[in-house]
Amino acid sequence: MRGGNCVESRHLCDFGDMPLSDWEQISRTAAQMIERPLDYADVCRGKVLGTTFFEPSTRTRFSFQAAMLRLGGSYIGFSDPYNSSVSKGENLKDTVRTVANYVDAIAMRHPLEGAAMAATLYSRVPVINAGDGGHMHPTQTLTDLLTIKQYRGSLEGNRVGFCGDLKNGRTVHSLIKALIRFPGNSFTLISTKELRLPAYTIEELEASGCRYTEVDRIEDCIGELDVLYMTRIQKERFASDEEYHEQSGKYILDRAKMALAPRDLIVMHPLPKIDEITDEVDEDSRCIYFKQAENGMYVRMALLYLLTQDGARYEPQPPRSNVDGLRCRNPRCITNHELYLPQRFKRPAENPANLLCEYCDHSATL
Amino acid sequence: MRGGNCVESRHLCDFGDMPLSDWEQISRTAAQMIERPLDYADVCRGKVLGTTFFEPSTRTRFSFQAAMLRLGGSYIGFSDPYNSSVSKGENLKDTVRTVANYVDAIAMRHPLEGAAMAATLYSRVPVINAGDGGHMHPTQTLTDLLTIKQYRGSLEGNRVGFCGDLKNGRTVHSLIKALIRFPGNSFTLISTKELRLPAYTIEELEASGCRYTEVDRIEDCIGELDVLYMTRIQKERFASDEEYHEQSGKYILDRAKMALAPRDLIVMHPLPKIDEITDEVDEDSRCIYFKQAENGMYVRMALLYLLTQDGARYEPQPPRSNVDGLRCRNPRCITNHELYLPQRFKRPAENPANLLCEYCDHSATL
Amino acid sequence: MRGGNCVESRHLCDFGDMPLSDWEQISRTAAQMIERPLDYADVCRGKVLGTTFFEPSTRTRFSFQAAMLRLGGSYIGFSDPYNSSVSKGENLKDTVRTVANYVDAIAMRHPLEGAAMAATLYSRVPVINAGDGGHMHPTQTLTDLLTIKQYRGSLEGNRVGFCGDLKNGRTVHSLIKALIRFPGNSFTLISTKELRLPAYTIEELEASGCRYTEVDRIEDCIGELDVLYMTRIQKERFASDEEYHEQSGKYILDRAKMALAPRDLIVMHPLPKIDEITDEVDEDSRCIYFKQAENGMYVRMALLYLLTQDGARYEPQPPRSNVDGLRCRNPRCITNHELYLPQRFKRPAENPANLLCEYCDHSATL
Repeated sequence: MRGGNCVESRHLCDFGDMPLSDWEQISRTAAQMIERPLDYADVCRGKVLGTTFFEPSTRTRFSFQAAMLRLGGSYIGFSDPYNSSVSKGENLKDTVRTVANYVDAIAMRHPLEGAAMAATLYSRVPVINAGDGGHMHPTQTLTDLLTIKQYRGSLEGNRVGFCGDLKNGRTVHSLIKALIRFPGNSFTLISTKELRLPAYTIEELEASGCRYTEVDRIEDCIGELDVLYMTRIQKERFASDEEYHEQSGKYILDRAKMALAPRDLIVMHPLPKIDEITDEVDEDSRCIYFKQAENGMYVRMALLYLLTQDGARYEPQPPRSNVDGLRCRNPRCITNHELYLPQRFKRPAENPANLLCEYCDHSATL
Repeated sequence: MRGGNCVESRHLCDFGDMPLSDWEQISRTAAQMIERPLDYADVCRGKVLGTTFFEPSTRTRFSFQAAMLRLGGSYIGFSDPYNSSVSKGENLKDTVRTVANYVDAIAMRHPLEGAAMAATLYSRVPVINAGDGGHMHPTQTLTDLLTIKQYRGSLEGNRVGFCGDLKNGRTVHSLIKALIRFPGNSFTLISTKELRLPAYTIEELEASGCRYTEVDRIEDCIGELDVLYMTRIQKERFASDEEYHEQSGKYILDRAKMALAPRDLIVMHPLPKIDEITDEVDEDSRCIYFKQAENGMYVRMALLYLLTQDGARYEPQPPRSNVDGLRCRNPRCITNHELYLPQRFKRPAENPANLLCEYCDHSATL
Repeated sequence: MRGGNCVESRHLCDFGDMPLSDWEQISRTAAQMIERPLDYADVCRGKVLGTTFFEPSTRTRFSFQAAMLRLGGSYIGFSDPYNSSVSKGENLKDTVRTVANYVDAIAMRHPLEGAAMAATLYSRVPVINAGDGGHMHPTQTLTDLLTIKQYRGSLEGNRVGFCGDLKNGRTVHSLIKALIRFPGNSFTLISTKELRLPAYTIEELEASGCRYTEVDRIEDCIGELDVLYMTRIQKERFASDEEYHEQSGKYILDRAKMALAPRDLIVMHPLPKIDEITDEVDEDSRCIYFKQAENGMYVRMALLYLLTQDGARYEPQPPRSNVDGLRCRNPRCITNHELYLPQRFKRPAENPANLLCEYCDHSATL
């Protein structure tokens, strides 16, 4: 425990690594910030956030930068790889060590999985994962949780539908993993056969004991949902144009489908969206995704405030590899691009035989 | 009226839509800011400007950002389209709704005509047009007016020459439209036949009752001017290299031409300039374009201060189309790219039969 | 003298032009800022730095921006040429005159030699050279001097080794030129034949009376050094891959070579580095390059504070050419790209027959 107004976590790479007490502290703080923003207008005065975006993401970057500014702090940053020292061949370790000299916290977006965790090994200041490839995006998860709590009153006992590309959507995987930490939630998975939730997430769902069903059409379940979480469905996921056009209509949320929904349903979306929600539905008061985006700023304010309060600096001690000779086999894992990184594996409680890479969570034993 | 230290306008898309009382308030405030900048060093403390530049414009962007910083505020932003969510296919409506969550005002530069007006339909915060294609650039107009008033003492009764590409220069069109709102100004239009002021601007000039003449050479009129407004003339506007070289010399302001000018002439230019003013003339004290650029910062300070003072947020209510079935036929109009936008047309007082698109001002009846 | 808490210099283009009393003031101020950063947290409140980077350099840009933020100021800027007015054909003079209207100091990075000095001719505010092509990078020199002083106690009587590409490394040339201004330093130059220090730097070394030796291998001298300054050695400098591989190993600092070094050696590097220092050596406490990078922020804080304290603005008066008809023959010199610049030459005290370009220091008489 770091005491007082702080959280136990020093960094945030994955919501799953965060004690629930930290989540409660963040959620409580964010709610106070929404209520009385001016009370916090100066709490990060003099503090600097580094937004190191190795791939562009305007929305997430804006949200972090606005959060720091609303706390009275400031930011420096880059927003694409070609504009960084990386283009001169510098490794991640050196970039992190250098940037950490100039800032009080780092928000990192990176195309490779596990990049933020790799950064924590070399950073003197808190590192926040702002998206690491297809792996995690924990501040989106915090945003989603805060929004559900705000509208539903509790994170327990909700009936949550996920619709669209459940196979590739890291937002969906992360939110499901987060919601099964709270009792009584049930899930409805709405997708084509091709875009179903991956087997390992289904396994986690089953291990959790939560109820879930897989359905084919929004109309078949929308009447029984508390939350409908929409995602973008991409044309290129389908074998042919015909197949896409035949199916895509099913997953466009239009007025007719909304007419079947309960009055107190909330429709969420991580944004940006393209055409999976029609323009008229945009004006439906049950669609709260812009409010959700606004909450993203408040939850990042809470996180930045809590992680930087004590202002501690420490010299990080990179650990050694913990399994001799074994290498992660995920080609998108940061350890296969930054070769000095110590190989680290963990044994999940539910299946200790299954070694998982600590950076990217891929199984080493498959 | 929004009372106190405020202006009636909530947004600024076009100087022509702004009541003259607002212009007077802005002009008075800018003059005070020039006089005593430190009095205003904190008036926007805690406020954030979003500079959403869908095409690059360093000069305008710097001017807005410096303005917000000089008021004690801060900014977030992007400076080109490839670095924004737009590259993921998001529409303007969603971008505006999201960004408006994070900021207290939006300065928008966009390649399409009417984009800023479209943004006002979906924004909870003031939108300032920082240039919408070839259409409007109202903060440049405010800058020009402030500069003329500063050097000439009044916006009435000035003899103003415009030189260069009068056909394509949106700065010129806007400033002429602004100056005819004040009595007694007369205009000298200096250009080649090919680059004359467009017919519709000539019509507005004639409807206003202001005197104007069209001339071929700077030397023929510079002796009788109070203000000479230079613009860049582009090689590619001419049929051949020969024609360009034959004519271009006429429109280069050099020492010989300046020798014919009154002592109290002022030479203005919206900048950047290339070679239409020679290096020696740059040092002539009658050339006040860098002072003009500095005024651009002060006028934006005044505008940002006045538009954000009350800090009001409101849920915008996009209107419906007001002329069934009619569509704007300007291919550069934002309504032909963002198809959800309501088609809106207005009937100008001087010619009510002529329906004009509310976004881009193109005639629908041509 | 500008009095009080100020330095004599108005700009910083080249460390060699700065009186040693200014260096002492900067060094003293930086040391106080390291000691008690909060005492300076507000000294630049309301001041704006313009970071005009005509070529990207994340590290240097971050360091300047963080420095200004740590003093309570703020920044505006661009970080590559395509995003600036330059892409519209504007000359440097106009860019500088315009930006100087908006800011209190300019940090300029430019691919052409002498660009920062050219900027000082047209700027109302202090200009700091953040790297002008292969010519100078004086804030790196300040950083290096501060770091040597911090670790060695004095800038006098040190045994300094430089290793790697001594031919092309502007950092090395600048630091050698700076160190010979202090008595008793000696130099060991470690490089291949092809990458030796250029003749003119050798001449300066000899004129200074400082001892120096040229050696082929790190192992042959590391035992006798106080400071080892490493630089990147680039593959493309060698005639063939074989030659590169044969030689490059010699200049990689590994554990075996560090075993020969004194306990109190410090290893410096301007960063970014690629593979000239092995990963294990990175963890050796004698490697202080990340501390060096941190010092870079403090020295820039000191510089920005001292240069902007009096807040004076003045209208710059560009001088005339001082040698009729002579032009600098360096194709990378700014004067051969911005043709309005006055040609200026100086006669060095040690060889008055040798005219040197004031912008780029190239000899006009070769």
